[in-house]
Parts: sequence; structure tokens; C-alpha cells
Amino acid sequence: QPSRLDWDRWVMMGLIGFSVGFLGFLLHQIIEIISEYKWEKAEDFIRDGDIAVAYIWVLGISLLLVIVGSVLVVYFRPSAGGSGMPELIGFLNGTVVRHIFNVKTFAVKFLSCACAVASGLPVGPEGPMIHMGGLIGAGLSQFRSGTLGFALPFFQRFRNSEDRRNFIQAGAGAGVASAFGAPVGGLLFAMEEVSSFWNMKLTWQTFFCCMIATFTTDLFNSAFTSFQYKGSFGLFRAEKYILFQVRNEIPVNILAFVPTVVLGVLGGLLGGLFTFCNLKIVRGRRALLAKLSDDWKRKVVRVSELCIIITLTVTASVFLPAAFPCSPFTCYSSHRYPSPATVLTGVANNTKLYPPMQTLTVTASVFLPAAFRCSPFTCYSSHNDVIRSPECLSPENHTIHTENDVSLYTCPPGVVTRFDNNSLTTNKTFNQVATLMFVTGEEAIHHLFSRETHHEFSYGPLFAVLAIYFFLACWTAGSAISSGLVVPMVLIGALYGRIVGLSMVSMFGVMDKTVNEYWAWMDPGAFALIGAASFFGGVSRLTMSLTVIMMEMTNDVQFLLPIMVSIMVAKWVGDFVTHPLYHALLELKCIPFLDAEPVIIHEGDKPVNLELHMARDVMAAPPCVISTRESVANLAHLLLDTPHGGFPVVHSSREGQDKTFYGMITRIELSVILFHPELFETRENPSEEDPEVTLLDYQQTTIHKLYNTDEIEELLTKFCDDPDYEQQFVNLQPYVNQSALSVRDNFSLHRTYIIFRTLGLRHLTVVDDTNKVVGIITRKDLMGFHLEESLAAILQQQLEQNN
Amino acid sequence: QPSRLDWDRWVMMGLIGFSVGFLGFLLHQIIEIISEYKWEKAEDFIRDGDIAVAYIWVLGISLLLVIVGSVLVVYFRPSAGGSGMPELIGFLNGTVVRHIFNVKTFAVKFLSCACAVASGLPVGPEGPMIHMGGLIGAGLSQFRSGTLGFALPFFQRFRNSEDRRNFIQAGAGAGVASAFGAPVGGLLFAMEEVSSFWNMKLTWQTFFCCMIATFTTDLFNSAFTSFQYKGSFGLFRAEKYILFQVRNEIPVNILAFVPTVVLGVLGGLLGGLFTFCNLKIVRGRRALLAKLSDDWKRKVVRVSELCIIITLTVTASVFLPAAFPCSPFTCYSSHRYPSPATVLTGVANNTKLYPPMQTLTVTASVFLPAAFRCSPFTCYSSHNDVIRSPECLSPENHTIHTENDVSLYTCPPGVVTRFDNNSLTTNKTFNQVATLMFVTGEEAIHHLFSRETHHEFSYGPLFAVLAIYFFLACWTAGSAISSGLVVPMVLIGALYGRIVGLSMVSMFGVMDKTVNEYWAWMDPGAFALIGAASFFGGVSRLTMSLTVIMMEMTNDVQFLLPIMVSIMVAKWVGDFVTHPLYHALLELKCIPFLDAEPVIIHEGDKPVNLELHMARDVMAAPPCVISTRESVANLAHLLLDTPHGGFPVVHSSREGQDKTFYGMITRIELSVILFHPELFETRENPSEEDPEVTLLDYQQTTIHKLYNTDEIEELLTKFCDDPDYEQQFVNLQPYVNQSALSVRDNFSLHRTYIIFRTLGLRHLTVVDDTNKVVGIITRKDLMGFHLEESLAAILQQQLEQNN
Repeated sequence: QPSRLDWDRWVMMGLIGFSVGFLGFLLHQIIEIISEYKWEKAEDFIRDGDIAVAYIWVLGISLLLVIVGSVLVVYFRPSAGGSGMPELIGFLNGTVVRHIFNVKTFAVKFLSCACAVASGLPVGPEGPMIHMGGLIGAGLSQFRSGTLGFALPFFQRFRNSEDRRNFIQAGAGAGVASAFGAPVGGLLFAMEEVSSFWNMKLTWQTFFCCMIATFTTDLFNSAFTSFQYKGSFGLFRAEKYILFQVRNEIPVNILAFVPTVVLGVLGGLLGGLFTFCNLKIVRGRRALLAKLSDDWKRKVVRVSELCIIITLTVTASVFLPAAFPCSPFTCYSSHRYPSPATVLTGVANNTKLYPPMQTLTVTASVFLPAAFRCSPFTCYSSHNDVIRSPECLSPENHTIHTENDVSLYTCPPGVVTRFDNNSLTTNKTFNQVATLMFVTGEEAIHHLFSRETHHEFSYGPLFAVLAIYFFLACWTAGSAISSGLVVPMVLIGALYGRIVGLSMVSMFGVMDKTVNEYWAWMDPGAFALIGAASFFGGVSRLTMSLTVIMMEMTNDVQFLLPIMVSIMVAKWVGDFVTHPLYHALLELKCIPFLDAEPVIIHEGDKPVNLELHMARDVMAAPPCVISTRESVANLAHLLLDTPHGGFPVVHSSREGQDKTFYGMITRIELSVILFHPELFETRENPSEEDPEVTLLDYQQTTIHKLYNTDEIEELLTKFCDDPDYEQQFVNLQPYVNQSALSVRDNFSLHRTYIIFRTLGLRHLTVVDDTNKVVGIITRKDLMGFHLEESLAAILQQQLEQNN
Repeated sequence: QPSRLDWDRWVMMGLIGFSVGFLGFLLHQIIEIISEYKWEKAEDFIRDGDIAVAYIWVLGISLLLVIVGSVLVVYFRPSAGGSGMPELIGFLNGTVVRHIFNVKTFAVKFLSCACAVASGLPVGPEGPMIHMGGLIGAGLSQFRSGTLGFALPFFQRFRNSEDRRNFIQAGAGAGVASAFGAPVGGLLFAMEEVSSFWNMKLTWQTFFCCMIATFTTDLFNSAFTSFQYKGSFGLFRAEKYILFQVRNEIPVNILAFVPTVVLGVLGGLLGGLFTFCNLKIVRGRRALLAKLSDDWKRKVVRVSELCIIITLTVTASVFLPAAFPCSPFTCYSSHRYPSPATVLTGVANNTKLYPPMQTLTVTASVFLPAAFRCSPFTCYSSHNDVIRSPECLSPENHTIHTENDVSLYTCPPGVVTRFDNNSLTTNKTFNQVATLMFVTGEEAIHHLFSRETHHEFSYGPLFAVLAIYFFLACWTAGSAISSGLVVPMVLIGALYGRIVGLSMVSMFGVMDKTVNEYWAWMDPGAFALIGAASFFGGVSRLTMSLTVIMMEMTNDVQFLLPIMVSIMVAKWVGDFVTHPLYHALLELKCIPFLDAEPVIIHEGDKPVNLELHMARDVMAAPPCVISTRESVANLAHLLLDTPHGGFPVVHSSREGQDKTFYGMITRIELSVILFHPELFETRENPSEEDPEVTLLDYQQTTIHKLYNTDEIEELLTKFCDDPDYEQQFVNLQPYVNQSALSVRDNFSLHRTYIIFRTLGLRHLTVVDDTNKVVGIITRKDLMGFHLEESLAAILQQQLEQNN
């Protein structure tokens, strides 16, 4: 039997995927256009020797961007700050977080994120992309907006919290898929980290959504560069759509697992340190802000803090390279260029492709194209000893390359010469630190991941950049601008990974694929990748999804296993040190989060076995119950006096019998009923027992949540005050959800937790052995701290009884 | 707070992964050693002109293997036949399937599968690998065996059905991971297809298990070929560990989606046809066998059937190529070979690497190594018009290659000449059909997936092989040998995919990457891949996991999107035609399967809304209830007279009150209690209300399931017959599971189904509004046909009342 054809759900998933993908394209292009313009101008200034001008230029633009980005957040929508990940996770766990799915949040988030990343702050656009993906999922699926005040008559059947939740999850997954070009990773990320309740049936639809998002982003990026039509629309080139494509594949060796484990341990420790420092900074900032009396002062401080960070960042980017000498530059590697024709065209027409070439002397530009002619087996460049022999020699020597798009900074461009035997020589030099700092974070990661460039970076620059970047990234995360953590995490990990790789090169010498395939795994670029995975894992404690994202991001299936091992080790080590960052932030932001398994509560040293406790130990008792026929005044009192979202309804089937549990009714349903006075009846006029026709239909009781709260309050107060309403009754029977689950009071606490969590409940009624309501369990009652308190009280009581 | 450290679970997952991986290695090597020997000898005979000898040789070996493989299954363990997938899926859904996790099944399955694949039947080893993976998970995690009669004192805490189920799922995933070299695919496969209940917490552990499996298989395969140590232990070369590695990456173009959708539709239709034919054949076979009176006749028929199939297969493989002419052979493509040095060594020392070269004439072997010297941009081979100009010409011409490991069959080997300008020429020829039929299925897939070999296969051979293979594969699946369907599915799909690709080449001409990158997607090899995905999807209706498996199997991330689109279209089209094959087989094998969503029941034309029905409409009533104090005789009667697995226990908390639902007790627990006469008490000696110390501990009541059924029956009969036992009572209170869920009788049927399925229940007690037991729901009551019957009766009743 063919399964239900949810064509409308597929259409909606496609729409969400497309929108998220297009958004990803826009964000990517905006960031690219700004930062490319900024850095190119700056390079021009530096090449002319005007470091001061370059500094002022970069600082000016960056400051402007940061101020715009942070003012938007601080003054218009504080909830748009940060990555939005903890809020999203909390929401999908069942907590209502204000403003997270709101048009204004979306706009502020988009602009602020674009500014933050383009400014050169040590942040990435990935976290906000995930949040914005969720936002699109939430907004698009409902076809209405509270803020904008419209509701279109499409897809009304999705206007319920379950479908909305599913679309938000799909949107968040699409955000990952678009940001990393990783559709499978996006799906797994939505499953592992974002969602708390996952419906297997939706997996394929979510995957479709992620695919469409990746596809849309790639499709537009395939043709546009900086919003100009360049290239072929619809042609997906790997180098364009794979974020950090690895070009030279290296076979993995079992020996590679020794340094991988070391990197994993480092990742766990450094990840823990990062989380710890970041939380300290966030707490310190909060304490400082709390001391300030005025609101405007707080706002100014928050904006100024970011100005200080960007000033430090720009200063480091521009001046730090000057502290390091120029390194010699060797032949370009032409291994992977598709054909001489393409490359020639590329050099001739598309100077964007090779920015450093623009300013080469005429001599160089004449000889450079020739450099691409040489074929991989006959043209070798030598870099045995970088300091002593900067020439390209004969084919007998190693092929230790430097990439061709490194930053020259103040180093002289030099010339390239080609000899008859197809060998090349150059006296070009470049600046290692500038290659890492004088570009966007993504480009720096590209450089660090590059393979067969054993000597491109040496210890000094790597350590210097690592220290500065770690400090700045740690400070920035959590400040008042919309920003993601992925690029900083990958960059930091790649830096120490490359250091470990380089130390192996120092110990064992250069092992190249063409020389010794067995030892070719000793490549600093490969270890940069593993290091990145380990640090990402150490901070986020993501596992499966991270492994797949790293693989899809680099398109290097061969390193799947080392990546997984490093992530696993990093997670184990990290779990001994700190919480995962997102969960620590959840706690810090006071968002209650219910894990899939109950937390382990310790009584003294011993863990408490929740199987030995019962549902009655944690339930809230006595509960507020209502009868199937209740007076209007009572209902109004109940709604005014309690904040509960749902109430158990009791009913006695026969006259004189005790009232037993009948079902649940939600606050919204009650409010809607009270808004319809035609439903009120006096006791003298009892309706038939089981009315066939209900006066309110299902749509009315569920959809219209948009009542004005003031209006409701006014009405309720009227009902409370007017004694007439004590004699008016409502028959709630048709509106009660009779399929509300209940558990016995002696139900095991562990199993209660599992049922509550697995079925995604909000209220669970507790009944005694004759089905009388004795209590109610809500998510608050199952939170770790609450469990701890309740059980401690009970254990205390038992102890007293025994004495 | 760090999560619970389940080190023992991790160790167990690692062990399972390792064992499955090692098993995969063994199976792979055994198959390789046999089939390589068989085909090489056969090629030698053919090259000597002795086609008849070759035929007898191949037929002899294949027949022997098939007879061994099928006799093992037919005479020793019929349940080891087929792929084992439906049984595994059914078991994990909650049905007890006899013999599927048994040492004997394992041994028979392994040997039979090795024989079947090595014999050359149109089958693959993947399905059995999945079943064997599940078997290893089931066996290893328990550390005991009923058949072998031992139980080791390790990992006792895993001896419960939940953990066992989880390990079986992980093992099945590891089977996929090992068979396809696809760890992520294995995980997703376990999630999507194999398991019915998935615990998110275990995802990472399952992934670990899959990873270890892939790793182990690759590790051993990296060093061994045909069980001989060859190569480097621990060095993972992509060409070795990626099953169908794609070498020449082609950028995808948006236009490629037009033929992709066509392929998807074809896949859905042909997949439906395959399923339909296969089911017809299975039913026909069953009807035929049922007509035979004697058991031995049936067995002989089953073995002979396979002998006929293999005879047909061998005849087609050996004689069909003779019907097609020799095709000209062009230069080898040297694009991806690491270096001349490596290749030279390879040619000189490791003749296994290039089997066809072994028997080249001396001339050729002198010139051949030289062929690898040429570099990609200067050595071109021309194949513009395959028939007219079989020479390699100047660099201006296209580089349309033929692979270098195609089968020569009876074609003359010819010579290779190299000119001064590095261009090559050859007058070698090869046989297209022999290249596809005269090898193992995996090699044929390799050939079909090869890129930039536009003219390697022409229409005639492709259609001929497709027709024969489709028919043979359809017949073989379901016969009495252990066999998987993956290789046939991929091969059939690749064949018609290549036909579609070739038709585009015929229409638009050859578009090569070096000539026109934008149109390079028109590659028959690329469409063979998409076609394979579509047919696989059309038969199995797998979605997400299949996409990832196809990607990991070919290591071609670029084609992820077309693969997904084709699978999606194939699934949609296929769902209109037939059930997915595995689910159809489940039905055919009478294994009850409970889907995640209730089936849609139609009353007339209208679908029935299950929300409008109640739990009481389908429950089994009246249920067999027992009291907390029950007489031994009653219990024995109950166990003897009913086959139920669990019984609701009732209890009255106060004297005189009606008995209300108290909990559940399982059949096994009751049996165990009845085996302990020391628990029996007479009414005169009532124990305290709530005994602190139970006489049987938890381990005893749950672990020992291994009672002899005869013994139990004897004991129960004694209890029934002896009137003494009517006065002997047991206090069941300590053994009752008080946390058994119950629902009200007016609970919505849809929600009942969801709860039952989500929580993976086996029994759900139905109570009335005062908590009295009124019925019980088991999985049988929620099966589609049962729902249909119950609801039809109720609707009928309503109709009568209305009249």
C-alpha cells in the first residue's frame, strides 16, 4: 500500500529549503563583496608601503560594520545576538523563548551577522544561518505573522505546534546544509543537536529540505560572484561548492591514529578551556552590566566592547605580520587544474581568481601562465630546505609547494623563470602571518588545510596566530552581535593541528606522496583537518553530525576515520572537563532543558536509582482540577490565578460516584470557550449528556491563539466579579482531550520520565488506583534541580522515619 | 555534567564492529580467491581457442559451488536462505522469527553466501552480510549460545531484550558498513530500514560500531589479496577501500536533472516490475513445491532449480560474447596514476594489479609501461569515431578512453606503439559483452561506472546483458541459497542508466571535460551511477540511507544531488506500482509488521479516521486477568490454555472494593515462579502486605529463559490435575511490573496506536473510568487486517442501529 501522499508537506519543505538556500547565497555574497573589497584595497595600500593608510582603511570599515551590527542588536532586538543556537535548542525542547521566531529578529539577525562576519571579527556566519533557517521554517510554514499582522489562507493545516516544530527542525537543518554545503550533515545535525523529538517519518522530508537548500545556494553561487554574473549558471564546480575542498588526497595510514589521539586529547582540553573562558567572560560581562544603573549606559558599554574587540583584531591583522620575515615562494602546483586552456583563460580574463597575481610585474605575468603548462610528472618544484634553496629544480627533487594565493604583504613580488627542461624558478617571497590574518577566516582555513605544503607555515606564525585568535574568539562569542562559532573553532583547531603536523615533519622529515606513499599521511594540512574536527568536537560535543559535516565540508572521504576518532577522544576528554558549550549556555540563559535521559542525581556519593522512586514523589499536588460542568466564575478564577497551560478534567460517570479522571483541557481552549457566551447555560437547562454537535469547531479552538491578552484579562475579571456568572455553567465535555495520558501514582519515576520525554508531553496527570486525579507532572517537575530537591526531601523523610 | 560512561557498551560495540568487519574481510577474500581463479583459467582457455573447455571448466566449478551452497541451505537450515533482511526487519519490529539468531544459521549463511557469489550467480554478498552482522550483534552481546550450550559470565547486563535489540541493530549497520565501505550509510540504513525502534542515545555508539567495521575490513584488505600478504598493512588506498570508486570527477550541471528524472521514472517502473516478477516467481515456486508430496522431492527440486539457473548464467557468460564483434581498443588513461615510478613497479612486480596484461605479447609488455609515462595534457588518445580510426592521434583530438582492464575474450591482443611526440597507437580490440559478463558482478559495475569512456559500450551489448541479467536476477532472488540483491540491483540500474547516457551521446555527441566543461555531465558512466541509484531505490524504496550509501560507495560527493533526485522520483513512481520488495516479502513470509503510522483503512471509498474510533473498538475482551494472590492451579490453567505473553494483574487496595488494574506480569515470570514451590503458600498463611525481601531476585526472573518446554508443560499439567494446588497460592505482588501503561477505553485509536508503537509496547491494558481492566491490546490487534475487521464490524453495527 503506497504511503500517504503529503504533497503539501513536500511543497512546504521545498519552499523552506529554497528560501534558506537563497538566504545562504545572499549572506555569502554580501559578506564576500564587503570583505573582498576591504582586503584588496588594504593589500594595495600595503604594497605601496602605506601600512598606516591600510590600517586606517581596514579599521574604519570594520568599525563601521561592527557598530552597525551591534547597534541593531543592542537597540532593536537583543534576542538576535549570539548564534541563537541555545534558544533554538531550548524552544524545540518545549520551552517558550520570547521573540526567537519573529520577523524583526530575522531582519536584525541577517544584517548583524553580515556586518559581523564582513568586519573581520573572529566569527562565522554558520550559527546565525541555523537560527535563520529555523526562523524561515517557523514563519513560512504558518503563512502568517503576528508582527506583520497577516494570515494567508494557505497551508492552514500546518498551523499546529507539532508541524511547526517539524518545519523549524527542517529549516535549521537546511541552515547547516546551506552554510556548510553539507546536506547529510544538516540532516544529522538537526537530528542530533537541534531537535529533542524526532519523527523518523520526517527524516526523508527533512533531507529533501536540506538538499534543496544546498542545491539553491550552490546554484546561485555557481553563477554569481559579488552579485555579478560570472561563470556558468547551473554548473556545480567542486571548488566552488565545497567549502574547504581538499585537493590532494592522501591515503590514510593506521599509524596516523597516534597523533590523531593526541589531537583528540588536545581538542578536549582546549575545547574545555575555551568553554570555561567563554563562560567566565559571559558571566563577568553580565556582572559588570548589572552594576551599571542606566539602561543607556549598558547599551553603550555593549557596543563599545565590540569596538574594542574589532580594534584589537584589526591591529593584530595589520601589524602582526610585520613582526615576521618574508618566506620564500616556490612554484605553483598545477596538479588539479582542468586544462591549460581553462587556466590560461582564467589568468587572462578573470583576475579575481588569483588576486595576488594582479600586481605582479609584467615579467611575471608573462611567465606565469607558462607555469601552468607543466605537467605533474615532469615539473617539480624543490623546497627541501626552504631557507637555503628557494629555486625550483629538476624533477628528481621533492614537490613541496607553496600555494599560489598566499599573501605577499610587504614582501617583494619577484619574478618567475621557466627553463627549457620545464623546470621553474622564482625568487618570490610571502608573509606567513599575513596569509592567515590578512584574509577572512574561511580563506585562512583553506590555507591551513592545504596539502603538500609542508613548509608553508612555520612554528612562530602558527603559535602567534593561535594565541591571538583563541583569545579574541573567546571574547567575541556571546557579545552583542549576531555571530557563529564554527569558523573560529575550525580555525583554532586547524592551527594547533598544523602545529602537531609540523612537529612531525620536523622529526621525520618531509614525506611526500610521490616519494613515499606509505608515509604521506604525515602532512600538516591533513592534521590541520583532524585538529579542526577535534576542537569543534571538544567545544560542541557534537559527534555523528560533526563527523559528516567535516567530511562533506572537505569532500575527503579518506579522512573520515581519523576525524571520527579525534572527535570521539575529544568528546570523552571534554566531558571530564566541562559541559558542552551550547548546554552550558542554555543553563546560563536559564532555559530549562529536558534531556532524553534523566540526569543522574547523587545522594552523597551514590547515584539515586530513579526506578526505585515513584511518580508521586515529584508530582505537583494537589492539582487544579475542573469538572466537565464547571461554572464560568470558577473557570475565570482558575485562569486568572494560575499560570498553568493545561488542566485535568474530572467527571463522574454515575451519580454519586467519585469523580475520576476524564481528560485534559488547555488554557487556550478554556479562554476561547469563555469568549463565546452562547455556550453558557444555567444549571436548570442541562444539555443532553453527549452532544452530537459541538458549538465550536476544532479549528476555532486551536487556531486562533492571537487574542489580545489585555482583552482576555478584562473579560476574566468581569466573570470573576459579577456574581451572575457563578450560576452560569459551561459543558466542557466536547472540548476535553479524552486521549490524555495518565499514569498511576506508583509508576516508576524513571519510566515516567521516559514516557514524558518520548511522547513529548507537556502535562501528565497522575491518578490513584481508582483513577482519581492526585497530581500533575509538568516539565518543570522533571528538571534536574527539581528532581534533586524532591528526592532529597523524601530521602530525608525516610531517614527520619528510620531513626 | 558528563554523561554516564557506558564503557562496557562501547567495548561491546567495538567488539561487534571488529567481528563484523573481519567477517566482511573473510567473505570478500574467499569470494575473490575463488572467482579470480575461475575466471583467469577460463580466460586462458578462451585465449587458446578452447571455448568448450572454458565452458566446461566454468560450469563445473560454478555448479559445484551452487550445489554446496544450496544443499547447505535446503538440508541443514532453510531459514538461512535468501538475504535474511525481511526476517531481521520483522524481528526488530517485535515478531519472534525462529532460528534467525542461531550459530548454525550463521555458519550455513556464511558458506552458502560465499558459494553463491563466487559461483557467478547474479547475486551479491551484501544482504547476507547485514543479516550476519545482526547475528553477530545478537550472539556476541549475550556471551552465550543456546545451540552450543554455554553462557559466559561476561556482560550479563546486556542479557535483556532491549540491549540485545540495540546490538542487533548496530550489528546490521556494521554489516552494511563493511559490505559497502559506508559507515555513515550503515548507520542510516540501520535507522531507516532495519530498526523499528530507535534510541537516539545509541546513534553515536552505533556509528562507532559501523566505523570499526569499515576500518577492520579496510585494514585487512589493505594488506591481503587472496589471503596472501601483498601491499602495505594499514595503508588505506582509496582505490582499494572504496567499492566502486569513481576516478574522473565531473561537475554536475542543472541540465543533468532532466535525464535524471527520466531515470527516476524508469527506476520506479522497472523496480516495480522487478518486485512484481520476483513475487510471482516466489509464489509460483511455492505453489509448485506444495504440489509435491514428499519432502525429499521438494528438496531435490529446490537444489535442481539453482543448478538450472547457474547453467543458464554460465552459458550466457561464456557464449553470449561470441555473438558480438570485437571493439577497437585505445590508449590507456593515465590521469590518476601516482607517479611513473609506482606504476612501473606495479607492472613489473605485481601482475595481479593488471590481470589482462599478464598474457599480452612480449611486444605489448615492453611498450605498455611506456604508456603510463605520458602526462595528461600531452598524451591524448583519439576515439572520435570508434569504428573508423582506432589510433591515438595528436593532442588536438578528444581523450575518449577505453579502460585498460576490459576483457579481450577471443579478440587478438595486438600491439601498442608510441611515437616521438608522445602520442600512442594500438590495434588492440576487446569484447564488450565479455567485459560485462565474463567477470564478477562487482567488476562489471566498475566498468559501467567508468567515466570518460563514452564509446566503451554500445547499445547492442548493453540491451542484451540487461535483458538476460534482469531475468536471471529476478529468478534467483528467493531461491534456496543465501544471497543478496544489491549487486544485481546496482548492475541492472547501471545498465539502463548507461543506455540513457549513451543515447545522449548519440544525440549530442561526445562532450569531454577537457573540451567543454559545461557539457561534461553527459557522460554515460555518470548516468550509469544515477540509474543504479534509481533502480535500487525503485526496488527497495530506501531513501536517505541509499543516497548516502551510493555516495560513500563511489566517493563522488558531486553527484549527491542527482542521485537523490533519481531515488526520490523512483520512490514516488514505485509507490504507485507495488510495495517495496522487503515489505512485500514480509507479507509473503507472514511476518506481522507494525508500521510507524497506522495503515489507512478504507470504508467504501472514504478513508476511516482512526481519531474517531476508540481503544475499546479493537481491544481483545474480556482479558485473562489474574489477582495479586492467585492459586497455583489457576495460574497453571492460564498458562496451559492461553498463548498470551503477558497478563494484567488486578488488585483491590481495600477489602470489598472492586479490583482495579495493578500491573502486568509476563508468561516467563509466571513460569519461573511456578518452578519455585517454596513460594507457594496456603490461604491460612498470608504473608505481610508488602514483603520487603522478595524470594526471587530480578536476575532469576528475567534471565533464565532457557527452560525446557516439555518440562514446563509436565509441571503445569501436574499443577492442574492435582487438586492440592487449588489451595496453594502465590503472592505475585513483588514480581508485578507496576509501571505498565494503561489507557482508558475511550482513548482515541490513532493515539493508542502511536503510543503503542512509539514506546515499543507488547501489551497495553485498557481500563474503564474507574481503572477496572476491560481489555488488552496486543500487536496483533493493531495489524492492518485486524483493524479493518474490527472497524468494519463496528461500522456495520452502527448502520444497523441507524436503520
